[in-house]
Amino acid sequence: MKHALPVTREQDFAAWYQAVISEADLAEESGVRGCMVIRPWGYGIWERIQKLMDARIKAAGVENCYFPLFIPLSFFEKEADHVDGFAKEMAVVTHHRLIGDGKGKLIPDPDSKLEEPLVVRPTSETVIGQAMSRWVQSWRDLPLMVNQWANVVRWEMRTRMFLRTSEFLWQEGHTAHATRDDAMRETMRALEMYRDFAETALAMPVVAGEKPENERFPGAVATYSIEAMMQDGKALQAGTSHYLGTGFAEAAGIKYQDQEGGQQLAHTTSWGVSTRMIGGVIMVHGDDDGLRCPPQIAPHQVVIVPMLRDNDEDGAIISYCEELAQALAAIDVFREPLRVLFDKKPAKAANKRWGWVKKGAPIIIEVGGRDVAGGNVSVLRRDRLYNDAGKLDSVIGSRDAFVSGAAAMLQDIQASLHAEAKARLEANIRRDVTDRDALAAAFTGDKPGWVEIQWAKPTGESLDKVVEWLKGHKLTLRNAPIDAAPASGTCLFTDLPAVERVLVGRSY
Amino acid sequence: MKHALPVTREQDFAAWYQAVISEADLAEESGVRGCMVIRPWGYGIWERIQKLMDARIKAAGVENCYFPLFIPLSFFEKEADHVDGFAKEMAVVTHHRLIGDGKGKLIPDPDSKLEEPLVVRPTSETVIGQAMSRWVQSWRDLPLMVNQWANVVRWEMRTRMFLRTSEFLWQEGHTAHATRDDAMRETMRALEMYRDFAETALAMPVVAGEKPENERFPGAVATYSIEAMMQDGKALQAGTSHYLGTGFAEAAGIKYQDQEGGQQLAHTTSWGVSTRMIGGVIMVHGDDDGLRCPPQIAPHQVVIVPMLRDNDEDGAIISYCEELAQALAAIDVFREPLRVLFDKKPAKAANKRWGWVKKGAPIIIEVGGRDVAGGNVSVLRRDRLYNDAGKLDSVIGSRDAFVSGAAAMLQDIQASLHAEAKARLEANIRRDVTDRDALAAAFTGDKPGWVEIQWAKPTGESLDKVVEWLKGHKLTLRNAPIDAAPASGTCLFTDLPAVERVLVGRSY
Repeated sequence: MKHALPVTREQDFAAWYQAVISEADLAEESGVRGCMVIRPWGYGIWERIQKLMDARIKAAGVENCYFPLFIPLSFFEKEADHVDGFAKEMAVVTHHRLIGDGKGKLIPDPDSKLEEPLVVRPTSETVIGQAMSRWVQSWRDLPLMVNQWANVVRWEMRTRMFLRTSEFLWQEGHTAHATRDDAMRETMRALEMYRDFAETALAMPVVAGEKPENERFPGAVATYSIEAMMQDGKALQAGTSHYLGTGFAEAAGIKYQDQEGGQQLAHTTSWGVSTRMIGGVIMVHGDDDGLRCPPQIAPHQVVIVPMLRDNDEDGAIISYCEELAQALAAIDVFREPLRVLFDKKPAKAANKRWGWVKKGAPIIIEVGGRDVAGGNVSVLRRDRLYNDAGKLDSVIGSRDAFVSGAAAMLQDIQASLHAEAKARLEANIRRDVTDRDALAAAFTGDKPGWVEIQWAKPTGESLDKVVEWLKGHKLTLRNAPIDAAPASGTCLFTDLPAVERVLVGRSY
Repeated sequence: MKHALPVTREQDFAAWYQAVISEADLAEESGVRGCMVIRPWGYGIWERIQKLMDARIKAAGVENCYFPLFIPLSFFEKEADHVDGFAKEMAVVTHHRLIGDGKGKLIPDPDSKLEEPLVVRPTSETVIGQAMSRWVQSWRDLPLMVNQWANVVRWEMRTRMFLRTSEFLWQEGHTAHATRDDAMRETMRALEMYRDFAETALAMPVVAGEKPENERFPGAVATYSIEAMMQDGKALQAGTSHYLGTGFAEAAGIKYQDQEGGQQLAHTTSWGVSTRMIGGVIMVHGDDDGLRCPPQIAPHQVVIVPMLRDNDEDGAIISYCEELAQALAAIDVFREPLRVLFDKKPAKAANKRWGWVKKGAPIIIEVGGRDVAGGNVSVLRRDRLYNDAGKLDSVIGSRDAFVSGAAAMLQDIQASLHAEAKARLEANIRRDVTDRDALAAAFTGDKPGWVEIQWAKPTGESLDKVVEWLKGHKLTLRNAPIDAAPASGTCLFTDLPAVERVLVGRSY
């Protein structure tokens, strides 16, 4: 069977991923090292993610703010663990002016050298901590919960579009609380928000759990993540939530007077998701014809392509399409107006259809002269592109029936994409592995999925040994799932009694 | 009469401006040179501006994208005029890693020096031009219209919150067209979009017109602006739209094959508005009690403050307020759901009331036990805070009557703020000045406003002389209003026949 992409998932998953991004016009290399250009369809998906996530963040009582892009070096020196984690990969601004070099080129003006270099934020704990130290005086000021939508930069040597770029877009929530319990509650609330968002909005099933010590955010006391399984079986960390203890509060001086008049350090949290989620959506839902965009985050949910022939019938087709677009735009789905596009671009209908297939528009409608005459439309569901005979499953049906069923069809597509991915996730987590040889063997095949093992949660050097062994097999610890069964056996690594279960897998 | 701010507009307009920003919790200094922290109320206004402007941008067929924060130096070297205009004030990234200096401090790792320094974007014509050169091949690809919401950095020596900060937030539209006419049409469309947005959403009357040659965007063929009059009579450039000719297209290689098969350079435009608009809103609508936020951009349009007394009545007051909030949230105003906040924070009612007065919530409702008993509410309209006797004009009236009239009241507040500012603008533009001495004299008084003069639109050295004379009087040319009467007299500067009218004023 012929497909729209030049390469299939089976042939070369990494090349297929790049092909989807390119053929669906999601993003492209920018000519600036490690940075991508996010094109309208890709950015439209990000706008949908922002809109749906922002509503959840606001509903939790978190307020949006904006903090500086630049962070003075000295801010980083205050939280030692944090520095160690990030010091290696930051963009540093050292000058504030350019001058000509006398040979037609520009150079940084030596006279403009900054006394203190500025770091382009890799994350904003330090600078937001400074602000919080001004805003928090009394227990009445807590909890203090802010969020920002921003660009951040982490200098990356090997980049991959959406998954790992030097600059990326994200939201970062930062909260301060009076007690450890309050802060932990918020850490888990954010984690559950991410889990629900991934499952609902992205139709992307995830496992929520605590990261092992070696995978913690620099300076955090505990880090939680949601992990999604890509179609090649690898794990993608798609969101994290951190309980930071009082370390960042101590570094920044976030103190409050408690009800008894004593001075206390606040407990802080931070949590974030990024444009990386789009990479996850591609690798969870994409097929050999391109992206399949879940309706909740599709910039256009229904696209109408007119089949024009440069003759007298064209006017009637265009009117018919315009009326159809109006009727669809009047419908609500997922508690928002349905997003419909009537694609009038000057191009061949077949090319436009395949363009929308590759982009993953959930429903593609084609309208020709015969459809107009019969009051019909030809409906292509992107999640079920082919029929059993391997032919494009374009179904002709009554226009009115399609309109009245459009919302239900979009909901069904959303649910189907989720069910398909959920089944794959569940089918590809093994829980029967009890020794290291079997663990290594479990990852020798093609698309090995994950293995959930029991372990004693070793720390320090003992953990280092485990991580090293795993690294030798190109494996990582993903997280200890919150919903896992209680531990009941022996730790695969240490032979001590197991205290929890943890997921092992290859990862992005 | 006592007011909520520590300083009045009359006493010290600049100090008053800072006081509004501080007392209304709009923004604050960040501790990072030239950068501010935008606090929730200030950022909420920006989110409203984004939402309303973004809808207008999308309605014009412009698509949102995202381009890299960093721009290689060499990109800037291509458009010579553009470089000259910006070269002096850019943040330059020269290293990509930090290391310890062995004394507990961090320094840029000398081994991580970049071969080619990267500039933090001051604007994105160059990097977007590179992308357009890839995207534009044929006349069918035109017009190409993109926009991005982003942070930009222009190193500023003297900063002022919202008006001039080293980092600021904005949107930048960039379009490419087949012909000069098409590009000029888009330039004027964006200008009119800004004019209408300022007048409608911000209730801020503006004058739209062409900037004189010396005030053009670096590299532009023509620059247009909207200019707003602050309450001290100074002008604030609140948005610009540029026709860039083919210069940027030539530098970046944006070429297309025309319908006859020939190669043509595209004509490009760019246009932007920024967080500076918030500074304009403050200085146009603020009074001695703080900000008066136009309802269309107020994060909360109605705020309900319960007057609790820590007694048995409190429960009934809270229920009453919650029902009121629900009833108001069900109303549509300006074609959106009304934004209501029930302020439950643990603080004294009077402090909360004055907090919202300073923030400029358009309507503040107070509810005490007696209001509940009588089915009433106490209504404070922020645009008319005091009655003729100089007392706070809190009006007790029926709850139901308030609810049914709330949308109309918000519309009236929006219209009143606009009318007040419009009257002030019109009263403070003089058109009777015909010689230089009179022009200089017009600016000797307090709050002098603007003067519209006739001129011959001199260029080159002749213009330089005019600009120098104006500079000596701390004056600038604002723009040549599109709606001005035709020229009919003699140029005040050159004694040549006037060809247009131009506004002269002090400016921010």
